[in-house]
Amino acid sequence: MACCPKSIIEDVLKKHDKITHVYFVACGGSYAGLYPAKYFLQSEAKDLIIGHYSSNEFCHATPKALGKDSIVITQSFSGTTPETVRAAGIAQEVGAASIAVTFDAESPLAKNADHVVTYGTTKEANDNGHAKALWLAVEILNQIEGYAHYDAFMASYEKYNEIVPVAKEKFAPTAKAWAEKYGEEKLIYVMGSGPNYGVTYSYAICLLQEMQWIHSSAIHSGEYFHGPFEITDKDVPFIMMMSTGRTRALDQRALDFLHRFGEKIMVLDNEEMGLNALDSNVAEFFNQIFTAALLDMFYMDLCEVRKHPRPTRRYMWKLKY
Amino acid sequence: MACCPKSIIEDVLKKHDKITHVYFVACGGSYAGLYPAKYFLQSEAKDLIIGHYSSNEFCHATPKALGKDSIVITQSFSGTTPETVRAAGIAQEVGAASIAVTFDAESPLAKNADHVVTYGTTKEANDNGHAKALWLAVEILNQIEGYAHYDAFMASYEKYNEIVPVAKEKFAPTAKAWAEKYGEEKLIYVMGSGPNYGVTYSYAICLLQEMQWIHSSAIHSGEYFHGPFEITDKDVPFIMMMSTGRTRALDQRALDFLHRFGEKIMVLDNEEMGLNALDSNVAEFFNQIFTAALLDMFYMDLCEVRKHPRPTRRYMWKLKY
Repeated sequence: MACCPKSIIEDVLKKHDKITHVYFVACGGSYAGLYPAKYFLQSEAKDLIIGHYSSNEFCHATPKALGKDSIVITQSFSGTTPETVRAAGIAQEVGAASIAVTFDAESPLAKNADHVVTYGTTKEANDNGHAKALWLAVEILNQIEGYAHYDAFMASYEKYNEIVPVAKEKFAPTAKAWAEKYGEEKLIYVMGSGPNYGVTYSYAICLLQEMQWIHSSAIHSGEYFHGPFEITDKDVPFIMMMSTGRTRALDQRALDFLHRFGEKIMVLDNEEMGLNALDSNVAEFFNQIFTAALLDMFYMDLCEVRKHPRPTRRYMWKLKY
Repeated sequence: MACCPKSIIEDVLKKHDKITHVYFVACGGSYAGLYPAKYFLQSEAKDLIIGHYSSNEFCHATPKALGKDSIVITQSFSGTTPETVRAAGIAQEVGAASIAVTFDAESPLAKNADHVVTYGTTKEANDNGHAKALWLAVEILNQIEGYAHYDAFMASYEKYNEIVPVAKEKFAPTAKAWAEKYGEEKLIYVMGSGPNYGVTYSYAICLLQEMQWIHSSAIHSGEYFHGPFEITDKDVPFIMMMSTGRTRALDQRALDFLHRFGEKIMVLDNEEMGLNALDSNVAEFFNQIFTAALLDMFYMDLCEVRKHPRPTRRYMWKLKY
């Protein structure tokens, strides 16, 4: 049944002697949607073992450690992604706790899960896959190891809904202007780091490659200087996602270089957009959710400029593969 | 001092009550060089906690769990990458075992390490960063949890040297022909999965973006159908890395699609090139090392066709950043 993260994890811990492993498993945008949860636990947990897999790799090269001491969190909006449905089924077969994050509580994915967290069923800004999976991760840490900033996190989770509309209004002119100026480009790079890297990835592969057929790649700000920076030029467009928190220094260094040798740069700065209104102990973990909300608005501008509506595909939904 | 993986891990386990966490930390090509080791442990270990970080992210957002029960394995050919040198230093400061994989046993990185594994000092095919880090990972698993295929791995590690020259001769005509035909392309995608994903990444960011200024992105074969496949077209070049082992099915599915809608495709098939001469229980873990050796040859063809020698840079070594 669909329920809230707190009681789900309480229930899992009643039914399992112990939980030592947490696996996040999904494809594409949903794989990225699990990133803030994975990032949070890898950063904050002392003893938990964390894995993050694209579903079909998890199905074919299942980690040997998967078993009854594991939680497997899957995500798919429709709940029909075949590889993810199978991954949740594998979790159940070995006695792991299978938790699905999905829009549809009656979907095939939900049927392969012991617990379901729904998202996208309301208009609240925090009712999305990234946020719900992160909340699950926070519950896991708090209930298993304890989390000093649990109350701050929960308060920020609510407060987040207030800051998004304000930020959208603030970012709108930048987004629209950049889309109008560079919307016809054939290649756009996307850069970010740390808590923002999941949305860096999903923006490149889903919003640009998949939905707009624009060539793209996600570049990690810390990796930029170890390869990709050599393709920087005044003709090469970049979307730079400036995070707040511990890895902002990485983003800043990359942005400084971009400003020296690039020209077609759009900056989305989460500090400037007001993310720091959240408690400083937890604001960092909301970077991706916030960035995604703001970039989605930019994406709609792109659709308009390019006269290429969101659901346009050449292969998906049209043929078998 | 520079030494061999087996005795290094024996020594670490003498000096530390227990080892629960293993972190792999490096930048760019070396970050990718640690991938087979990380993939092996994440797949095979039952209780070890594994992390894989770009160095500056590790330095700025250091995981809370890092401490005296941790091993930190860093890698840098020159041993001078500042972020990686600092990461090894952080490891030492908190009492973790700091192991450096580097060409230069006297480098700054080596000075921040308790143990050093050198590579690139001989002409042997297995004397490279990917292979040495993997060997360390195998020693860690075998000495801490036990590894059923340890002897098979060590035998394959030696046998690997015999299969590489044969494979190079076999792959040479394909590589040369493709470089001559498509060497002037401005964008080339690289695709692979599972044990091969590290080299997919490094080929895109180091060999293509950094050294040839060709736009590129690494695509995971399992993620291809969840975004990137929409940019497939007869004009878009792809290098497809076919692995042997459990995730080959993912690569095959992607390749089948590429053959339907793409034309400029180079396939490097590790099974066809003879990787299966290694023991079937461990061959999979050699995919990346093998792929990298063969693609390096292709890269030299590319340098020739493009009249763009390997050490050509526009920013690196030329300015401060």
